[in-house]
Amino acid sequence: MTDGTRGKVLLATNKTDNALWVDLLGRTGREVVTAPDGAEDPSIHYAVAWHQPHGVLGNLPNLKAIFSLGAGVDHVLRDPTLPDLPIVRVVSENLAQHMAEYVTWRVLDHHRRGAQYQRQQAAGDWNELTQPTSAETSVGFMGIGELGRTAARAVGSLGFKLNGWSRRPADVPDMTTYAGAEGLPDFLASTDILVVLLPLTDATRGIITYDLLRQLRRDNAIGGSVLINAGRGGLHREADILRALEDGSLGEASLDVFETEPLPEASPLWQHPKVFVTPHAAAPSDPRAITMPMLEQMDAYDRGEPLQNLVDRAAGY
Amino acid sequence: MTDGTRGKVLLATNKTDNALWVDLLGRTGREVVTAPDGAEDPSIHYAVAWHQPHGVLGNLPNLKAIFSLGAGVDHVLRDPTLPDLPIVRVVSENLAQHMAEYVTWRVLDHHRRGAQYQRQQAAGDWNELTQPTSAETSVGFMGIGELGRTAARAVGSLGFKLNGWSRRPADVPDMTTYAGAEGLPDFLASTDILVVLLPLTDATRGIITYDLLRQLRRDNAIGGSVLINAGRGGLHREADILRALEDGSLGEASLDVFETEPLPEASPLWQHPKVFVTPHAAAPSDPRAITMPMLEQMDAYDRGEPLQNLVDRAAGY
Ligand SMILES: NC(=O)c1ccc[n+]([C@@H]2O[C@H](COP(=O)([O-])OP(=O)(O)OC[C@H]3O[C@@H](n4cnc5c(N)ncnc54)[C@H](OP(=O)(O)O)[C@@H]3O)[C@@H](O)[C@H]2O)c1
Ligand SMILES: NC(=O)c1ccc[n+]([C@@H]2O[C@H](COP(=O)([O-])OP(=O)(O)OC[C@H]3O[C@@H](n4cnc5c(N)ncnc54)[C@H](OP(=O)(O)O)[C@@H]3O)[C@@H](O)[C@H]2O)c1
Repeated sequence: MTDGTRGKVLLATNKTDNALWVDLLGRTGREVVTAPDGAEDPSIHYAVAWHQPHGVLGNLPNLKAIFSLGAGVDHVLRDPTLPDLPIVRVVSENLAQHMAEYVTWRVLDHHRRGAQYQRQQAAGDWNELTQPTSAETSVGFMGIGELGRTAARAVGSLGFKLNGWSRRPADVPDMTTYAGAEGLPDFLASTDILVVLLPLTDATRGIITYDLLRQLRRDNAIGGSVLINAGRGGLHREADILRALEDGSLGEASLDVFETEPLPEASPLWQHPKVFVTPHAAAPSDPRAITMPMLEQMDAYDRGEPLQNLVDRAAGY
Repeated sequence: MTDGTRGKVLLATNKTDNALWVDLLGRTGREVVTAPDGAEDPSIHYAVAWHQPHGVLGNLPNLKAIFSLGAGVDHVLRDPTLPDLPIVRVVSENLAQHMAEYVTWRVLDHHRRGAQYQRQQAAGDWNELTQPTSAETSVGFMGIGELGRTAARAVGSLGFKLNGWSRRPADVPDMTTYAGAEGLPDFLASTDILVVLLPLTDATRGIITYDLLRQLRRDNAIGGSVLINAGRGGLHREADILRALEDGSLGEASLDVFETEPLPEASPLWQHPKVFVTPHAAAPSDPRAITMPMLEQMDAYDRGEPLQNLVDRAAGY
């Protein structure tokens, strides 16, 4: 039962199966159309986008705002025909909880020497490794926004020391914070396990280089430094990660995101004994958790209320 | 510099290298002797034991109390010549913290489908698995004493649902508790991940049977039930665990303790794809963290103050 008095929603994604999204977005009665069918339709007032086909958002005369299907918006901003309209991103407890679980899981696995115990198990080797407590291991978060802070809170509740790095100076309970280019060297030098939860922007693209990884603290009780990237693959250079693992600058890595996704068959990361690969699965946007808040925001905006979780287009996130 | 006015300490272990313990136990000036040298020495007032050679504790005319080097005391009580004296066990924040880390690590690894993602990685398979949040997974603790409660608090801080089972009815914040034989079926039926942190006693020996494992909830969002045993190997039957894994009654297991330790070379657990083996390394007694509190207790007892963390010999823990 659609309601002709309210503007339509255009769903514009690179997915082949949009049925669930169409169903959920229609739950409040708004008509949902999918790109490119909707192009130039004046009755479309809102767009919901995930890697939208370029061009389709540029020709909608009455479009009022664009909603990203994810917490990141790099995939939306990449479109050269993107109109100059408010962009709303996902901020969701469900998503943050998934991310906090992923990060805590990977931090504990590196801290507790999971990979080495597995190698020992495969070899039938009964050998207890020296084990520091969490208070002796520093976990440093590059990016202390919605996801970085939630993940840090979970990691901190287990007793790990916390460092954080952001663009603007920030105050976070129980965390030593650093900001900008001047803060980076000290942040890295006091971090054993680096967790990357930055957005992908012009300023952060390719930031995780060999040179940066070499600055992490590796003279520690867990046998080396660790990289965990759950932000975006474009933030790191895989050749640099491999080089740092090769020469011991980096001890181990957990990677959820990659320069090219799906990770190409030929990538040496798949079989690397020091790398734990997951398929961009750290914190999926759960359709059931995120569509209703979007629809509520559309109604609120129609009533003249302001939009929440807006993207700063100049900053790129 | 030893102090002849205070009773000596007898160190009685099955370890071949006791040098660090002797050094640390001598820090307050008490003379430290090692078994069996010390047998029958009337100047020995305290014994510190870990799998002590049977017989050595029975012939000390002025022994006042026995200190276990671990949180568990099954290894002390096993001695048929054990004198009827107070037994003190280890209760240490450092040990509880290590255990909380181990349990949280293993819970997250099973909850986040670590083993399956690793199989997919080995096969170069980019495939996102359905992932419930922690609130959808119930972690049940058999044993909610010092270690069970600390571990449960850590697991609970990540959002997991908590169940607990103990001998006597107990009240634990944010946990659904069950007690005794009558409480066991309901406890098991509402538990997805079972964490065993019981002491090994006559009442608990061999309690983790095929029949018990079959009662866990396996129709859940993580693809089956899970056993994590960090208590004692004598609590479980390895043949039953293998049978339950074989027919799907049990999905996966993390085992830190075994019926025979070190785990024999021939054990099928070493190479089992659904079992994660660690060498009784969940929560080692850190000599630096636990000796000073023992020495302080000896001085306090000499002054007439009561001993802390006493074992109930009838209950066996
Ligand atoms: N793997 C997955 O499944 C998954 C799922 C969801 C999201 N993500 C990724 O996670 C990212 C973070 O999400 P969020 O919701 O936490 O974002 P957010 O709330 O916008 O926080 C971004 C953080 O990064 C910092 N930052 C941005 N640019 C920076 C720069 N040039 N230098 C230093 N710090 C900079 C920000 O600093 P300020 O505090 O100073 O602004 C802020 O602390 C998303 O953009 C997305 O790429 C991944
Ligand atoms: N893997 C390792 O590295 C490692 C390290 C240290 C310790 N441990 C093991 O962990 C065990 C637990 O340590 P802890 O300090 O937590 O012990 P604890 O404080 O004495 O707690 C024991 C718990 O088990 C329960 N329990 C005992 N007998 C029971 C029975 N027959 N039926 C039901 N519940 C029963 C107790 O119930 P009540 O509350 O009713 O008394 C209590 O909740 C130790 O005994 C040791 O075997 C392993």
